Amino acid sequence: MADNKKLTPRDEDFSAWYNEVVLRAELADYSPVRGSMVIRPWGYGIWENMQRGLDGLFKDTGHENAYFPLLIPMSFIEREKAHIEGFKPELAVVTHAGGKELEEPLVIRPTSETIIMEMYAKWIQSYRDLPLLINQWANVVRWEMRTKLFLRTSEFLWQEGHTVHATSEEAEEHTRRMLGVYRTFMEDWMAMPPLTGLKSESEKFAGAVQSYACEALMQDNKALQVGTSHFLGQNFSRQFSLTFQTEEGKEEYGWNTSWGVSTRLVGALVMTHGDDNGVVVPPRLAPTQVVIVPIWRNDDQAEAVRSKAAALKARLGEQGVRVRIDERDYLSPGNKFYEWERKGVPIRLELGPKDLENEQVVLVKRVCGEDEDRKEFLPEAQALAEIPDRLEAFQASLLEAATARREANSYRGVEDIGQLKEIMESGGGFVYTGWSGDPEVEERVKEETKATLRCIPDEEFRSSDAPTKCIGGGEAKMEVVWDRAY
Amino acid sequence: MADNKKLTPRDEDFSAWYNEVVLRAELADYSPVRGSMVIRPWGYGIWENMQRGLDGLFKDTGHENAYFPLLIPMSFIEREKAHIEGFKPELAVVTHAGGKELEEPLVIRPTSETIIMEMYAKWIQSYRDLPLLINQWANVVRWEMRTKLFLRTSEFLWQEGHTVHATSEEAEEHTRRMLGVYRTFMEDWMAMPPLTGLKSESEKFAGAVQSYACEALMQDNKALQVGTSHFLGQNFSRQFSLTFQTEEGKEEYGWNTSWGVSTRLVGALVMTHGDDNGVVVPPRLAPTQVVIVPIWRNDDQAEAVRSKAAALKARLGEQGVRVRIDERDYLSPGNKFYEWERKGVPIRLELGPKDLENEQVVLVKRVCGEDEDRKEFLPEAQALAEIPDRLEAFQASLLEAATARREANSYRGVEDIGQLKEIMESGGGFVYTGWSGDPEVEERVKEETKATLRCIPDEEFRSSDAPTKCIGGGEAKMEVVWDRAY
Repeated sequence: MADNKKLTPRDEDFSAWYNEVVLRAELADYSPVRGSMVIRPWGYGIWENMQRGLDGLFKDTGHENAYFPLLIPMSFIEREKAHIEGFKPELAVVTHAGGKELEEPLVIRPTSETIIMEMYAKWIQSYRDLPLLINQWANVVRWEMRTKLFLRTSEFLWQEGHTVHATSEEAEEHTRRMLGVYRTFMEDWMAMPPLTGLKSESEKFAGAVQSYACEALMQDNKALQVGTSHFLGQNFSRQFSLTFQTEEGKEEYGWNTSWGVSTRLVGALVMTHGDDNGVVVPPRLAPTQVVIVPIWRNDDQAEAVRSKAAALKARLGEQGVRVRIDERDYLSPGNKFYEWERKGVPIRLELGPKDLENEQVVLVKRVCGEDEDRKEFLPEAQALAEIPDRLEAFQASLLEAATARREANSYRGVEDIGQLKEIMESGGGFVYTGWSGDPEVEERVKEETKATLRCIPDEEFRSSDAPTKCIGGGEAKMEVVWDRAY
Repeated sequence: MADNKKLTPRDEDFSAWYNEVVLRAELADYSPVRGSMVIRPWGYGIWENMQRGLDGLFKDTGHENAYFPLLIPMSFIEREKAHIEGFKPELAVVTHAGGKELEEPLVIRPTSETIIMEMYAKWIQSYRDLPLLINQWANVVRWEMRTKLFLRTSEFLWQEGHTVHATSEEAEEHTRRMLGVYRTFMEDWMAMPPLTGLKSESEKFAGAVQSYACEALMQDNKALQVGTSHFLGQNFSRQFSLTFQTEEGKEEYGWNTSWGVSTRLVGALVMTHGDDNGVVVPPRLAPTQVVIVPIWRNDDQAEAVRSKAAALKARLGEQGVRVRIDERDYLSPGNKFYEWERKGVPIRLELGPKDLENEQVVLVKRVCGEDEDRKEFLPEAQALAEIPDRLEAFQASLLEAATARREANSYRGVEDIGQLKEIMESGGGFVYTGWSGDPEVEERVKEETKATLRCIPDEEFRSSDAPTKCIGGGEAKMEVVWDRAY
């Protein structure tokens, strides 16, 4: 039963490490359905906390939740030309239902712009009905040939926000606002600092005017797109006759945005903070923040230790700390330590008869700085008083470490494709260069280096010396960031 | 824009009233996808609160959440014979995906016993892994020919709990425990008192050994099955090789339960508490518990009234009350009153310049007892102090009224089919009779009266004088409850 085998080290095979840790930390499992995964309770608990954090931020910015149908008529998906071109290869199609062949096939939503616009067109009459700010928590299906747990599966869970505005400016502003909400969430909850910026034309969402993205740097120095926010202009409004009467009494098409993040975030979390012992979950997202492992040799001790453990749990619970006591009697303490380290619980308290005598606990941090001890013997009262602050400090230190790692693996002032290729081949990272805006250059870089244009970074990420040369030669019109990506 | 038209009264056409109120309270809307509905923010907000209540009760009873695939191989569904017989006519089938025809068709889950058992078989080795208590929040699809908003749609949202136990007794006990959890939720959160009991063989879940149900009596005196809890025995374990090693070292099949409630509960809520003015939402489930309608004639007044409204909202918010201020300037106060009454907000506060002068508010209850006034003028401080208690009293009074209505429409001591038919034809209700257990009688009652056997009621609902005669003639073996049902 005990699973003490070491994980493949990250520097030996990052991809093997990732798969192992996801499975053995019981975040997820393969399912018998090709391309679909099962999210196990520990992984789903993290997702629930992510949902709570995001949902709060959405509501604080004026959004309400709603629910739209899973099945969309094929003809809806086909209306917006770029949209169907982008999604057609990934559609799962229902052709039979209720024992009969359907007159029109239905697709399982790969995203819901079309069905939602159809409904919005019915609900919106006037500028007074705007802005309309709605979010949906849902599952979507995009058929995938090469899948990877959490990162790319045929079915995944996500949220998709869909808004309508009276002006282009307001919709654009909202697109950027939601990008900011994602960034805030990733930094404050996930301790994962994303790079934010605009996608190039070739990488934007099928049907969007502009797509913004959060790009996070994983420990293998590959980029992972972890969230997107799209300005849709009037592209979908036109196809679904979503019009409104302006204040001046004119009929105009609505201006739309859509934005989403998915269970991919759980994979991002693993690849941002995990180490060779397992996952590391930031306290704000940890289903269990403190695990208490009671230790005893005989029944008398068991009684006393258990009751002390329960008392500690209650006291910490009163302070809002999520605590679990691991009372399984068929596992040794050592085996329990391995398991909770692998699952990434931030703090472990070990509690034995000697600790009771000394009114102390043994506190072990999941990770710590180089000049710290992971293990401390603390007076019980001190531990109780300090744990909430220690969890906050743990959260902050994870963000700090991840930010330092991103900066250490960002390269500025790179001027030609050869240099970029060298960086990619010696490990990768975020590489900042100039770009003319020519898609042919983008294509060439990709062919020669396997790096793709991750984004045109937002102002605060740009180099203080703006590059003047395009990486493909000639003059630069803007600065961009390249990396190999998942 | 204003929607002041009266609803069709319930006693004129209950079904028309129901559809109108669901649409015009903006709980839900028809979608262009046959059989699927859209849950609008007000309806979804109620569902979110239901989820919160249920999820807390599930976690308090030791369950964790997880997520299993939407798409299930056809061969899985076919393994359990009764299961496929029951669900075959309702399946939606994916035959094509990723641009190709699939080798094996996939069905959209109508329920997830099969795929979940397949995974459990992989996870469970020993009695030490038991009980396994997992719940899933998900969408399911059961193709329906005759749909009704919330009550019967091809796609609906629900939770499905799936547990594994080491013994038959423990699984049976858990089946009943979860029935109790549902009853608690319905009474304490929904203010809807269900009748609980065992389903007859002909009405049980496809694949179950025994099904228990919560049956609620709607205002038209028809029964609505609002939750079910199934003891599955080893039926699914056998088909999916879900075995475990017992403490004695033997190999045994696991014992399963499954249980679910769905967005149908929102429909049940409407038909339990709604009146001719609209929906009535119990405070614990109301997305907005108190709506403040500020009233003014000129800009000076507007300023003062608005700032007072904001202060009231803040003060109530501190006490945990969910408050919304309706500041829309293009609707008259009267139109706002109609709208929030239709949506069922428990308490409305009207606030005008005169009220500010007198340091008072006008408090209007959505519904009240016969000897009460709906509208009261209250000193502001008193209103602030009393509103939390008033919301609780409102919640309690709804449960009381619904319980009294159920009792007033329950008929005991009925001895023959003719009498039952008479009750059904003069309005219906819960009719308690004796039954021999003969399914032929069940069938005959249905044909002659259109009433179905709702359940064999739990002990506490049984008549103090146990019926001795079966309604179909001969001796009674048990007491049962009949009604026409949705």
